[in-house]
Amino acid sequence: MTTTTPTANVLHTAYQKSVASYWNNEKDPVNLRLGDVDGLYHHHYGIGDYDPSVLEGPEDTRDDRIITEMHRLETAQAKALLDHLVDISPGDRLLDAGSGRGGTSFMAHQRFGCQVDGVTISEYQVGFANNQAEQRGVADQVTFHFANMLDTGFEAGSCRGIWTNETTMYVDLFQLFDEFSRLLEFGGRYVCITGCYNDVTGGRSKAVSRIDEHYLCNIHPRSDYFKALTAHNLVPINVIDLTAHTIPYWELRARSSVATGIEDPFLTAYREGSFHYLLIAADRV
Amino acid sequence: MTTTTPTANVLHTAYQKSVASYWNNEKDPVNLRLGDVDGLYHHHYGIGDYDPSVLEGPEDTRDDRIITEMHRLETAQAKALLDHLVDISPGDRLLDAGSGRGGTSFMAHQRFGCQVDGVTISEYQVGFANNQAEQRGVADQVTFHFANMLDTGFEAGSCRGIWTNETTMYVDLFQLFDEFSRLLEFGGRYVCITGCYNDVTGGRSKAVSRIDEHYLCNIHPRSDYFKALTAHNLVPINVIDLTAHTIPYWELRARSSVATGIEDPFLTAYREGSFHYLLIAADRV
Amino acid sequence: MTTTTPTANVLHTAYQKSVASYWNNEKDPVNLRLGDVDGLYHHHYGIGDYDPSVLEGPEDTRDDRIITEMHRLETAQAKALLDHLVDISPGDRLLDAGSGRGGTSFMAHQRFGCQVDGVTISEYQVGFANNQAEQRGVADQVTFHFANMLDTGFEAGSCRGIWTNETTMYVDLFQLFDEFSRLLEFGGRYVCITGCYNDVTGGRSKAVSRIDEHYLCNIHPRSDYFKALTAHNLVPINVIDLTAHTIPYWELRARSSVATGIEDPFLTAYREGSFHYLLIAADRV
Amino acid sequence: MTTTTPTANVLHTAYQKSVASYWNNEKDPVNLRLGDVDGLYHHHYGIGDYDPSVLEGPEDTRDDRIITEMHRLETAQAKALLDHLVDISPGDRLLDAGSGRGGTSFMAHQRFGCQVDGVTISEYQVGFANNQAEQRGVADQVTFHFANMLDTGFEAGSCRGIWTNETTMYVDLFQLFDEFSRLLEFGGRYVCITGCYNDVTGGRSKAVSRIDEHYLCNIHPRSDYFKALTAHNLVPINVIDLTAHTIPYWELRARSSVATGIEDPFLTAYREGSFHYLLIAADRV
Amino acid sequence: MTTTTPTANVLHTAYQKSVASYWNNEKDPVNLRLGDVDGLYHHHYGIGDYDPSVLEGPEDTRDDRIITEMHRLETAQAKALLDHLVDISPGDRLLDAGSGRGGTSFMAHQRFGCQVDGVTISEYQVGFANNQAEQRGVADQVTFHFANMLDTGFEAGSCRGIWTNETTMYVDLFQLFDEFSRLLEFGGRYVCITGCYNDVTGGRSKAVSRIDEHYLCNIHPRSDYFKALTAHNLVPINVIDLTAHTIPYWELRARSSVATGIEDPFLTAYREGSFHYLLIAADRV
Amino acid sequence: MTTTTPTANVLHTAYQKSVASYWNNEKDPVNLRLGDVDGLYHHHYGIGDYDPSVLEGPEDTRDDRIITEMHRLETAQAKALLDHLVDISPGDRLLDAGSGRGGTSFMAHQRFGCQVDGVTISEYQVGFANNQAEQRGVADQVTFHFANMLDTGFEAGSCRGIWTNETTMYVDLFQLFDEFSRLLEFGGRYVCITGCYNDVTGGRSKAVSRIDEHYLCNIHPRSDYFKALTAHNLVPINVIDLTAHTIPYWELRARSSVATGIEDPFLTAYREGSFHYLLIAADRV
Repeated sequence: MTTTTPTANVLHTAYQKSVASYWNNEKDPVNLRLGDVDGLYHHHYGIGDYDPSVLEGPEDTRDDRIITEMHRLETAQAKALLDHLVDISPGDRLLDAGSGRGGTSFMAHQRFGCQVDGVTISEYQVGFANNQAEQRGVADQVTFHFANMLDTGFEAGSCRGIWTNETTMYVDLFQLFDEFSRLLEFGGRYVCITGCYNDVTGGRSKAVSRIDEHYLCNIHPRSDYFKALTAHNLVPINVIDLTAHTIPYWELRARSSVATGIEDPFLTAYREGSFHYLLIAADRV
Repeated sequence: MTTTTPTANVLHTAYQKSVASYWNNEKDPVNLRLGDVDGLYHHHYGIGDYDPSVLEGPEDTRDDRIITEMHRLETAQAKALLDHLVDISPGDRLLDAGSGRGGTSFMAHQRFGCQVDGVTISEYQVGFANNQAEQRGVADQVTFHFANMLDTGFEAGSCRGIWTNETTMYVDLFQLFDEFSRLLEFGGRYVCITGCYNDVTGGRSKAVSRIDEHYLCNIHPRSDYFKALTAHNLVPINVIDLTAHTIPYWELRARSSVATGIEDPFLTAYREGSFHYLLIAADRV
Repeated sequence: MTTTTPTANVLHTAYQKSVASYWNNEKDPVNLRLGDVDGLYHHHYGIGDYDPSVLEGPEDTRDDRIITEMHRLETAQAKALLDHLVDISPGDRLLDAGSGRGGTSFMAHQRFGCQVDGVTISEYQVGFANNQAEQRGVADQVTFHFANMLDTGFEAGSCRGIWTNETTMYVDLFQLFDEFSRLLEFGGRYVCITGCYNDVTGGRSKAVSRIDEHYLCNIHPRSDYFKALTAHNLVPINVIDLTAHTIPYWELRARSSVATGIEDPFLTAYREGSFHYLLIAADRV
Repeated sequence: MTTTTPTANVLHTAYQKSVASYWNNEKDPVNLRLGDVDGLYHHHYGIGDYDPSVLEGPEDTRDDRIITEMHRLETAQAKALLDHLVDISPGDRLLDAGSGRGGTSFMAHQRFGCQVDGVTISEYQVGFANNQAEQRGVADQVTFHFANMLDTGFEAGSCRGIWTNETTMYVDLFQLFDEFSRLLEFGGRYVCITGCYNDVTGGRSKAVSRIDEHYLCNIHPRSDYFKALTAHNLVPINVIDLTAHTIPYWELRARSSVATGIEDPFLTAYREGSFHYLLIAADRV
Repeated sequence: MTTTTPTANVLHTAYQKSVASYWNNEKDPVNLRLGDVDGLYHHHYGIGDYDPSVLEGPEDTRDDRIITEMHRLETAQAKALLDHLVDISPGDRLLDAGSGRGGTSFMAHQRFGCQVDGVTISEYQVGFANNQAEQRGVADQVTFHFANMLDTGFEAGSCRGIWTNETTMYVDLFQLFDEFSRLLEFGGRYVCITGCYNDVTGGRSKAVSRIDEHYLCNIHPRSDYFKALTAHNLVPINVIDLTAHTIPYWELRARSSVATGIEDPFLTAYREGSFHYLLIAADRV
Repeated sequence: MTTTTPTANVLHTAYQKSVASYWNNEKDPVNLRLGDVDGLYHHHYGIGDYDPSVLEGPEDTRDDRIITEMHRLETAQAKALLDHLVDISPGDRLLDAGSGRGGTSFMAHQRFGCQVDGVTISEYQVGFANNQAEQRGVADQVTFHFANMLDTGFEAGSCRGIWTNETTMYVDLFQLFDEFSRLLEFGGRYVCITGCYNDVTGGRSKAVSRIDEHYLCNIHPRSDYFKALTAHNLVPINVIDLTAHTIPYWELRARSSVATGIEDPFLTAYREGSFHYLLIAADRV
């Protein structure tokens, strides 16, 4: 049982402890209510245009319509991520690095029929997601571990694919990709969706700084991703600037009942060009 | 007049001399006949599905239909490349590095209305393309230089955008991007379309080796592009695997009258996965 | 006259423009009122124990006593910095990189009798400081330039010493030390006082993140300083952890009338060990 | 028994599989007939002047005379390589990396009386060479393994000496020397004979490209050898340009019955200076 | 028992053997007589001002007074070193790398009450120091090993703190800090006191060269320390130039009965600025 | 006239000043008397077997015979060095870096008929060698400059060939080869003869340390040469271990009247394997 891992072996620094504490206590409706729609709990944002009709019509169900639509967009994002995992067979193993409440892991298992391991430094999330796995009857195939993605302890070369869905801003990318490079088999695929700040506009803008402060994270410049991938035998095959595709989600969210106040900085940052929403797919060579 | 540049200052090595000689003597119908269609002479391949109807119908005009369709596809490729040059104003300057007979340069000028400089180590191509510029009445705006793209002699920071359309396999990428990094202004954009071999399948396959031998070139592994970009302050924003999109062009070409015999290695390499057709757009930071 | 430098040549990025704008509009009493004490206007914090008696005694003059005491501590800090500039002769030239309203520059000139050049990207500060220089009758010896410290345009090897007094958090250290390495003569000295976050506690803590957001800056980890120095032929000779020495200043400031609200994050960060106040003296070799 | 190693553990990439297939099917007289002379089967070229008299005299035995002379030159090459292995005792262990049909391994065993292990990715060659070992009664001392020289699985520090005799063009030199650096004891010796292209003449010439295509290999530039040695604690002590010494072998071979057609590109490349035949001896430090 | 370690596993090179031999045979009064004062045997120099009165007064006890004063200064140096080991608990483990006759190890144990391991390549010193440990009744807590500090064989992450007290001039700093980085836990502290030559005065001066020859060592330039620390995740927090503080020790020693003749080169080197006596405290991150 | 170069521009550090002073005052018979033989004054050692008969025969002329023989060996060494300068035409320019009294420069001019520039930081040597040039009537073709080989001020790409004959132990190799890489044209040749210590035997041995102290130099490990060449686009084509070839010279010198006392350390170091006498020829690419 991974749940008996001593905390000291997982949380190495004061910073990691504070991040874990943040997510152990997070019960944000923007995550919980959207997950309730169909039982897929995400911790990320959405892509694609929203259906403007959800904003119209009867007021008493408008909020539900918006929630459902936002959930559709975040599920579309996870789907877009999984589209970049290729050549996955039922005998393979995938790693969801920073697995949250498990949404993307379950979608991956549904699609590929293979083993999926999720890791997170939040013990609360481990419990929540493993509980979901049991309810779905896939606990033998989809497992969540209280583990640090910088140092999973998993066997070298044991993963066919790894993804991070908006979790890289909590760690040093060089340490992270060092671990991923170790875990992936030769030819394995890594997929990342992340927000990153734009080297062209310079240092972190006011808006990006506000996001960092809100989530206690360290948003990296775009250049860091390519430096760290390159340094660890991870070679891009597709890079997609999703910025324009995520703005509608934020516009809808800003008008929803589950807005948290961080919508403005996101919209400002995306619109002024100081921030990108980026998908990177890379091969381990 | 740039045409009086001493050859010794442009062609530094025996290898460069042999490449120059190859292109000075190249009069291949696959380039010339396609260019004749509308006066845009390209030296690259096409993307997109071809219209299967061109293969049907009257035999006496079938060849013309195929030629026209192939030309449409190669123009579509150049258009796709130019789509990644953003924020270009009439006062800006663009560099076509390895400009061939000038096709992409003229398309860029048409689109952005700005100055375009092309460089090539083939004196024949310089002459051909400058002649085209005069015929089009844009010689004051679109100029072709007998110059080495590794060492153009142009002023630092003088370019808003640079592209290479299937020319990087003739040079060392580290030297090339060192020069491009020098030439681009901060925030400037570099766009590259290239064939590269796949690190995942390992060293150059038989088919890739045949292409190298045919064109006297040195196809790089995909990983080299990202190493060299990263080493020279060029940060990707979009990377697109165009392999599936270029296969139709090659299938059509294999059935055309202008097939050169290199079609089979290309199709084999693309289909076996040992070779990619890749577009990279990157920002100078 | 340097004041006619076109803005575009100094402010390269949107980020730099927003930093310049911040400082052009800053009229904070914590800087102005303290400077009024004796005409030395600083933009940095203090070191050393404060005299607790300033908090006692008649209420109507308490605020003045506190202000005067705080100013004494910040002047002591500048003095400590200058103590690490050695072997400076009247014929030498010093650079104050990020010179603010000029306080440290005037102290340096008084001590060494040599030319001092200050650079700042705030045109307001350039004007304020040059005005001070004229009032002090040293305008021919102490000059402030509207210039970017990453790219001063000054001659290579022209500086005997350079310092940064709490300004490095606005720039990339590798770019900065590249420029300093170019500007310093062989054997020249660089002195830096800065806040940096502690790699041992991990990523930026909540408190450090709040400081970043407040000042629109990017506080670096301690390790970055030594990586960037090492990469640019700057070899430390003294490194002093001033954290314990700056806490009294912040405690006094928190109780003063000029507190800005950022005192709490500073005190928290220093006390929890996630943030250091560091002096580095290094030689150009 | 090494022959039961699963193929998947030895051949990691499609490229390696195609190289293995090439050598599994190679039954070239230029290797077999020369080996038949005295039972030492080589897979490399020769050095030294040939005796011109072999071309004269009775026609019916001329071919035999030429074959015998060519074999003498290739054995002289292997001898020259072994001359650079120094301080080898009977208790030491040597590694023949890319051992082919085993010729150099047997010569090394004869000279040093120590254990010699050969590795090759051709199962056919493993069988052939182990069979030879048994016939020579040295199977307990000279053993051939179906193994990848990039990843032998042998113990760290277990080798006193390693050589590659014309096998480095099939692999990445950085990966190879990483493995060799791991395998060699401190102070151990590595000897390499290889063809490499000349950085001074620029990229791979037409002739070099033809050799690559013929053998499905990737001839490296000379500079790569020194970069990769330097990066892996291997320090040259002797480097010998053998180009002039190998040309006679090729001239004789071109006139022999076992010429394969690749003689012309070799002679052209050597004579035009685009290709070197190089011996490097280096110490593990 | 560590004393049965085969010599070959500890001493890898001829150089290491000659250094070991030097220290196995060293019985220098400057180390032994000073140690006799109170049973703390050091192999390093002193810091702080000496009491000039020891040079005055009755001649028959002057030598004893000087010896006692010199010993006080060298103990003060060890104390200064230990002051930089912070957050050490009784359950922690410390490493004295190059432990000599054990003086600093015993002081560390006294101060922190934790386990201290010393390593040295002199078997004589191992015996001497372990004997001391038994006499002091701390043999279960303070242990000396015949081991190479470049390759201790101790467990990764097993040390809370490591120090080198004038021992780094015998080894390559990159190898050394690679091992220390492996041995230290995250957040662990390394403290170094060393003589280093000054990059600003250029290559090793005559005086420094004489010291090297005397002790068979290789004094490093100051810059090497920071390059090697930086390359191995060791981040300075305090660096102190002790040069002025060690000169009095040497002046006193030059006038003592235990002067060895190396006093002049030290004094010359320190005074001319070609040599520093430096303390570095760094954190493992 | 180069002799008016201000000293401060040539001698940057205290170390360089002391080296210059050493050579300004050196009037050693081992250099002067040997040079007197035929007017070629060398500052290096010899290679090849000596004629044992010089030690026999009449005693009154034995010393002269020995001197003449030693001079023959040192001229043979210079000849061996020049053999590695290839493709030199009369219109080319060569650089003798650390030219001493000019011997090798004059030999180079005699052989290639081209311009030769020598640089040395000893003003005495500049004067001596330029005087020789005038006496030989080649002052317009062979010129000696008071200049620092780390920073010659000569034009980039202006040299077809550069050599260092036992002068690299006075400088940092990375700085030196940075300058040489700048000075050499593409394809230009660098030849070095040097003593270097052997990484395999470990740090500098006692004997090597004595040589360093004698000449005030910093003998580099062998590995440093290849690291520094590799880092500066200089690719070895021949490396020859001359150690066995130089031992006879030292044996003869030890028995000569001009022995300086340094013969023993040299012979010890060469025989114990801690020191090599190495020739490296490399191409600028």
